[in-house]
Amino acid sequence: MALKRNEKNDKKIEKKNVSKGGKNGKKLKVIALGGLNEIGKNITIFEYGDDIIVVDSGIAFPTDDMLGIDLVIPDFSYLVQNKDRVKAIFVTHGHEDHIGSIPYLLRDIKAPIYATQLTLGLIQIKLKEHKLDRVEMKKVSAGDVIKVGNFSVEFIAVTHSIADSCGLCIKVPNCTVVHTGDFKIDHTPVSGDHIDLGRFAELGREGVDLLLCDSTNVESEGYTMSERYVGVIFERIFEKHQDSRIMVATFSSNIHRIQQVIDCAVKHLRKVAIIGRSMANTVKIASELGYLKVPPKVLIEASQIKNYEDKQIAIITTGSQGEPMSALSRMSMSEHKQVAIKAGDAVVISASPIPGNERSVSKVIDELLKKGANVMYDALGDVHVSGHAKREELKIMHSLVNPTYFMPVHGEFRHLKMHKELAVDMGTPRDNCFVMKLGDVLEISKDNAKITGSVPSGRVFVDGLGVGDVGNVVLRDRKHLSQDGLIVVVLTYEGATRELLAGPDIISRGFVYVRESEDLMCEAKEVVRKTFDKWQGKSNGDDWSNIKNEIKDELRSFVWKETKRSPMILPIIVEV
Amino acid sequence: MALKRNEKNDKKIEKKNVSKGGKNGKKLKVIALGGLNEIGKNITIFEYGDDIIVVDSGIAFPTDDMLGIDLVIPDFSYLVQNKDRVKAIFVTHGHEDHIGSIPYLLRDIKAPIYATQLTLGLIQIKLKEHKLDRVEMKKVSAGDVIKVGNFSVEFIAVTHSIADSCGLCIKVPNCTVVHTGDFKIDHTPVSGDHIDLGRFAELGREGVDLLLCDSTNVESEGYTMSERYVGVIFERIFEKHQDSRIMVATFSSNIHRIQQVIDCAVKHLRKVAIIGRSMANTVKIASELGYLKVPPKVLIEASQIKNYEDKQIAIITTGSQGEPMSALSRMSMSEHKQVAIKAGDAVVISASPIPGNERSVSKVIDELLKKGANVMYDALGDVHVSGHAKREELKIMHSLVNPTYFMPVHGEFRHLKMHKELAVDMGTPRDNCFVMKLGDVLEISKDNAKITGSVPSGRVFVDGLGVGDVGNVVLRDRKHLSQDGLIVVVLTYEGATRELLAGPDIISRGFVYVRESEDLMCEAKEVVRKTFDKWQGKSNGDDWSNIKNEIKDELRSFVWKETKRSPMILPIIVEV
Repeated sequence: MALKRNEKNDKKIEKKNVSKGGKNGKKLKVIALGGLNEIGKNITIFEYGDDIIVVDSGIAFPTDDMLGIDLVIPDFSYLVQNKDRVKAIFVTHGHEDHIGSIPYLLRDIKAPIYATQLTLGLIQIKLKEHKLDRVEMKKVSAGDVIKVGNFSVEFIAVTHSIADSCGLCIKVPNCTVVHTGDFKIDHTPVSGDHIDLGRFAELGREGVDLLLCDSTNVESEGYTMSERYVGVIFERIFEKHQDSRIMVATFSSNIHRIQQVIDCAVKHLRKVAIIGRSMANTVKIASELGYLKVPPKVLIEASQIKNYEDKQIAIITTGSQGEPMSALSRMSMSEHKQVAIKAGDAVVISASPIPGNERSVSKVIDELLKKGANVMYDALGDVHVSGHAKREELKIMHSLVNPTYFMPVHGEFRHLKMHKELAVDMGTPRDNCFVMKLGDVLEISKDNAKITGSVPSGRVFVDGLGVGDVGNVVLRDRKHLSQDGLIVVVLTYEGATRELLAGPDIISRGFVYVRESEDLMCEAKEVVRKTFDKWQGKSNGDDWSNIKNEIKDELRSFVWKETKRSPMILPIIVEV
Repeated sequence: MALKRNEKNDKKIEKKNVSKGGKNGKKLKVIALGGLNEIGKNITIFEYGDDIIVVDSGIAFPTDDMLGIDLVIPDFSYLVQNKDRVKAIFVTHGHEDHIGSIPYLLRDIKAPIYATQLTLGLIQIKLKEHKLDRVEMKKVSAGDVIKVGNFSVEFIAVTHSIADSCGLCIKVPNCTVVHTGDFKIDHTPVSGDHIDLGRFAELGREGVDLLLCDSTNVESEGYTMSERYVGVIFERIFEKHQDSRIMVATFSSNIHRIQQVIDCAVKHLRKVAIIGRSMANTVKIASELGYLKVPPKVLIEASQIKNYEDKQIAIITTGSQGEPMSALSRMSMSEHKQVAIKAGDAVVISASPIPGNERSVSKVIDELLKKGANVMYDALGDVHVSGHAKREELKIMHSLVNPTYFMPVHGEFRHLKMHKELAVDMGTPRDNCFVMKLGDVLEISKDNAKITGSVPSGRVFVDGLGVGDVGNVVLRDRKHLSQDGLIVVVLTYEGATRELLAGPDIISRGFVYVRESEDLMCEAKEVVRKTFDKWQGKSNGDDWSNIKNEIKDELRSFVWKETKRSPMILPIIVEV
């Protein structure tokens, strides 16, 4: 097979040498502004002539070192600089890492959003929260082709862990790109909407110049199980725990998973309570739009749970990642207003821990078990399947689309690199594979593709209402404060005489218990007083800044010697 | 089998009813002071009459919420209260979670330490660092039986990811306990020292009242592979990467792993450089004691690497957990003095990420790949095996020891609970299994076992030189500071007239860039000034504390309104 592919590529290149460059010599530019190494999350820019289109605009969640940060969004400055050229935003599906930063993007850029119905619904919730009410929302269906400037963009149905997901075929004169979006190949999807493998194949036969493909699961051999398989497991769980309350925690966006829990509950004559704000939001919007089918009188409020027997209740909740403020976590700690876990409850954590969340998930499991619940989780059984294609599925996609050039997207660097190797193994010439760095610009035409430069890129921190006002200095200070706390030294002196009027006083926070360190604090004051006395005695023009620094240095070395800690030291020297 | 076991247990109980209680009516007490739920890590106390022995005394590493904490040790207060009764400390093996807190325990308690040679060597390094030089160190070998007061303690060889590991058989009059320590059943160990299954079987046949057994891998089906299997993989890697520099990162305590790398290096005529302080320490002590066999002229200094060709070099290093300050991490970031990763280097990360370290390991892998290294890690191949028994091995241990009572140790609550279920499945009566809570006291004699109370227990934070001086208040402050930083407000006024002499000034750290928030800071000053003016105008006896709180409240709500952040606010109001 590898041979055949190489032959084909050679032929393509030959043929292309005839019609050099695009129409008018314009080339398609593909810019990876996110989706690589998990920075700022998924966003890709396509540029042709004067037209720019944006595909997805997601957020990343902060890692442990981003202290106090709420969200991480991509650096939009390149788009803002070129805002008049941005013609449209195309969105593949409604996951946070693909839609989360749209409201921030739309602060500066006016462009219509094209997406399928559910995706639009989920975007709408965000826009409302941000009070953005004049955005042009264009509903599309799989199969639709949208023409915007020189671009024509076709939505192609794919299967993924959220309904209404699409890949895209992006055409400009003389160049065709396929962007898979996030996908798996689920032949028995819960909704009945299949991945349109036929269309990918057709495009492949017509000739695809560039493939952008999901790399999330490239480290995993074989196939991802069908979402429907989880339903089979759920059914077994409902069978086995007939007399218990059953509780399922999962991602609020996984509507098919939620549907399967509801189906089981209905079959077993249980009422369903939806708990957790984001879960309630999605269930509401997905029901309104017809993606979730809930028979009447099945849903109940959390407050009604107490009116039913355990065996009549199923609960669907957030908190599958062990998030401390989530419903499941609070229920497990008996801190939830309406529901407390009790012995015999059957709790299913229908998700795998996202890297970084292992400890918090583990903590929730332990709390649930301590309360006497039966807990079913990823490590013990098939209560979750991934939404992303594993290696064999990726190979099918490569085989069908059969692109000349390949750009792995959606993954850490190691995934992108491994995905490149997969493509090479399948016959794509090594030089035709582009593992991009953030901001890289790939220029592509039928006969040529290369990285020609880069645009401003990176991540921007969102903290409260502030976007971008927390940077490395602030994070460094937070880090410092978090490690050893703070000592504030206050003293007031008269400017003319250098006479000490008040202090020195020492206040500490996050350093040591004051009660247990009274001696230490007294000695520290003594250190400050001595330093001040020495300065006071000097007749030459030592300035304010000097005494400040001297106190800081003396106190720092005293504290280090006594405790081997380096709290932040803030000397506040007031001259009156 | 289950039936047979039950019969046997019944018989035992019958027989035991004859001789009620121990000799003199004394009962053995087993106290779990650590090793449960990963708190303060492994330490178990055995008490009989007036005698106390301690088994292991480990540390835990701080989790993300323990800001600035260096180590977590068990709360020793019960032992300190009873220090005259503590006769000895027995140590099963030399891992940090079993030896790390010994120096802290020995600050208050004088008792000899019994352990095998390598374990003692590793403890010795710690005692030196803590300048504890008068500790009685008693070298034992597997098979030795130590008599201390009413106790007789036998060391039984086990296989684990560190050499010289032992389980213990602890006997008091009329009661026999087996404590496995950490173990796996490795039939082809690298050192040739087998686990003494025969002795466990013999004890089982003689009658074991209580088994304490490692629960780490109870979630994993099947068997843990032999350590030797990793050697086979290493050999393949050395074969494949003949022309590259080869680098292996692993736990510094895994001497067998290190031995296998050295063996491969010797076979392939490579020199070996040991990089990383803890790695150098263990290699030194293990070589001196004969646990590591390194032919002469194989080891070279890091500074000599440059004198050799790539194909002549193998490097063994720390950093398999992606620790930011470790050798591998610094090499990957080109921040290491002597070695920088370059294209073509073959890097083996011979470890799995400990829960909580996934992200940092992933980051190191990405950095290595970006430098062009070939990286082999856990997810991709068998470059690591666990040191702990999986389910089938645990069953063998239960089957051989065949205890009347069972206490799972070494694991999160979910592991302990699952291990209990495994024991029940094998025929141990449910009521004979004790999943302990920290500090629980299990009283046991031949005919009876029950939890009769608890002793003070918990975890103590070590931060710098401070042991236990960082508690929840300090951690809460650190957390607060880490999330939103700090605003200090300073103003000075004359006591008699309430005239403002200096300020208000505002200093912030970890809050926002000052440059980008000048307006905000000016407005904040205005808020403080107005609050002060109002207070100044009041004629009644508002006191100092009131103005402080008023400024705090006003500023807090102003900042929240403007930024949706809650920095810590420290008003410093000086009266002169």
